[in-house]
Amino acid sequence: MSHAKSGEDANGECRDSKSRVTIVGSGSWGSVAAKLVASNALKLPSFHDEVRMWVFEEVLPNGEKLTDAINKTNENANYLPGIKLGRNVVADPDLENAVKEANMLVFVTPHQFMDGICKKLKGKIKGEVEAISLVKGMEVKKEGPCMISSLITKELGINCCVLMGANIANEIAVEKFSEATVGYRESREIADTWVQLFSTPYFMVTPVHDVEGVELCGTLKNVVAIAAGFVDGLEMGNNTKAAIMRIGLREMKALSKLLFPSVKDSTFFESCGVADVITTCLGGRNRRVAEAFAQSGGKRSFDELEAEMLEGQKLQGVSTAREVYETLNHCGKLEMFPLFSTVHQICIGRLKPDAIVHYRNFGPNPKL
Amino acid sequence: MSHAKSGEDANGECRDSKSRVTIVGSGSWGSVAAKLVASNALKLPSFHDEVRMWVFEEVLPNGEKLTDAINKTNENANYLPGIKLGRNVVADPDLENAVKEANMLVFVTPHQFMDGICKKLKGKIKGEVEAISLVKGMEVKKEGPCMISSLITKELGINCCVLMGANIANEIAVEKFSEATVGYRESREIADTWVQLFSTPYFMVTPVHDVEGVELCGTLKNVVAIAAGFVDGLEMGNNTKAAIMRIGLREMKALSKLLFPSVKDSTFFESCGVADVITTCLGGRNRRVAEAFAQSGGKRSFDELEAEMLEGQKLQGVSTAREVYETLNHCGKLEMFPLFSTVHQICIGRLKPDAIVHYRNFGPNPKL
Repeated sequence: MSHAKSGEDANGECRDSKSRVTIVGSGSWGSVAAKLVASNALKLPSFHDEVRMWVFEEVLPNGEKLTDAINKTNENANYLPGIKLGRNVVADPDLENAVKEANMLVFVTPHQFMDGICKKLKGKIKGEVEAISLVKGMEVKKEGPCMISSLITKELGINCCVLMGANIANEIAVEKFSEATVGYRESREIADTWVQLFSTPYFMVTPVHDVEGVELCGTLKNVVAIAAGFVDGLEMGNNTKAAIMRIGLREMKALSKLLFPSVKDSTFFESCGVADVITTCLGGRNRRVAEAFAQSGGKRSFDELEAEMLEGQKLQGVSTAREVYETLNHCGKLEMFPLFSTVHQICIGRLKPDAIVHYRNFGPNPKL
Repeated sequence: MSHAKSGEDANGECRDSKSRVTIVGSGSWGSVAAKLVASNALKLPSFHDEVRMWVFEEVLPNGEKLTDAINKTNENANYLPGIKLGRNVVADPDLENAVKEANMLVFVTPHQFMDGICKKLKGKIKGEVEAISLVKGMEVKKEGPCMISSLITKELGINCCVLMGANIANEIAVEKFSEATVGYRESREIADTWVQLFSTPYFMVTPVHDVEGVELCGTLKNVVAIAAGFVDGLEMGNNTKAAIMRIGLREMKALSKLLFPSVKDSTFFESCGVADVITTCLGGRNRRVAEAFAQSGGKRSFDELEAEMLEGQKLQGVSTAREVYETLNHCGKLEMFPLFSTVHQICIGRLKPDAIVHYRNFGPNPKL
């Protein structure tokens, strides 16, 4: 992929020398991603102004189609009301049409949808395409975690970076200062292009040569958030909470390195690591529901609390904790991950919530 | 230093083969340290049961001396009311007397007092003595930081470890789960002895071969807490706060390595690093006063707010930020530390509080 420095090539044509970006997804984080990218596409001569956004079509209460409303008002009334996405964002309900001209694809949907999307896109994208995944969460299977970046590379035959970090969509939407990490596999040049496309004065993006480490952070942090929620529910105070967050970060690092020996320690000092753990453990629904679970003394189930508190949404952290437990159990490494394994055992009622702070679970030689 | 396995030596005498511990200091953290150490001294055969605690004598409102009250009630009514220190803790108002039999000294006073204490103790301690400093905060001078561990080694001619971490005294006093880090210079064996002496089921201590890194964390974290307080005062949200805490941790690491190239990255994943930053940025007086400062738009001075909010105490973070700024300015490295230098400039009114989240201050190439 090359980017022309000027707007036109020798023949006065610019269509093929400039990059075209499509955002695949239009939830709140997808809409914020569109806003960030659109502001930069306007400024950078190597990009077409237009940024296409694939929108899963819905009908608004007033009978209007969501895509029509976005293209008319320049706002996503369903998922990011009140925020102008940029005049150069074009909503498109047709996935194939939305990607057919693009050579840079930004994937930002719930992770469960990615398998179906990739199958639909097979054979429908251009030849020279680069992708980035902003999808947080993945399944962790005994045979290994289902990295979304790997799924995209396998199914579509294209290189895929990831962007993760302490990124609460609503706060970035109102331009509060934040950071993110781009993880890349090989080409630093491609990573730099993504950094350029996402960076704004309030959104600072750093490239890291460790796609697996960055991507795993976005999933494993949810297990730490469950642990932090238990501490909150038990009213153990900031000291204990900080200790549990630290042990959680340590186990995220250790598990990532166990799964992919190439993972770097330094990745966990980046926004995708320590900062996302902090944000997720201070706010977030995983923490909130786990807090309610601990307050009930573990007497109300997660299923019941989710139904009551989350309007049909499921907690990522609870299922990830189960998958991690099964994977570690399978390979005989449970005792290396006392926090992760304790979280799962509390979730299923095998241990009481206060087991999260039992010394014997964490010491004295965790060998991490 | 050797520890007899049994209580008695061949002659049936046990005085010299067992270690004797004295706590130098009796504030809230000193009193908690006494409680932790006393519980272990009773259990470990290589230690004398009695733990002596040097107490700066005060007279209680009822006319009783503080030391007499501690020895009668086993509580420190002034600094840790309601907590039993352990029957084997003996308060002693005479510094020389308190240390004369000890071969393990635990220093835990405000850092300003350490110079005077060392001068008083010169020539008054036994030959084979080991020390540990729990003193947080130090002066950072242009010629280098005044490490308390170095001061002790220089003045008293003894080896000195440090113990730092996310340690809010009142929370550990009621036995809420917490962690700490012991930093040591040479002997791992000595570090393990300190770990043994402080570890309890609710207080998990890890040794780290990096005394400077561990000790600097306990001082530099206060500058990060000031930054976090500004973010709170500006109501920027969890995302921004996590980003600022992460950048702060990164600058703590970079500055420590600049001052002492032997400092290890991994130290900042320990309790003294990331966990203490979290605790200090969630609670703590540095954060609290900085929040009030930002809420006033920087119109009320730190001196004024300190006087109003802290009853005569001074904020460590504000003076450390100034010292760090002067040191970095002196050696021409200010631009490598945008967060630290911005904190100081906000404190003195040269920048507005919202400068803490100005992108230009942190990017795009911080070279850290």
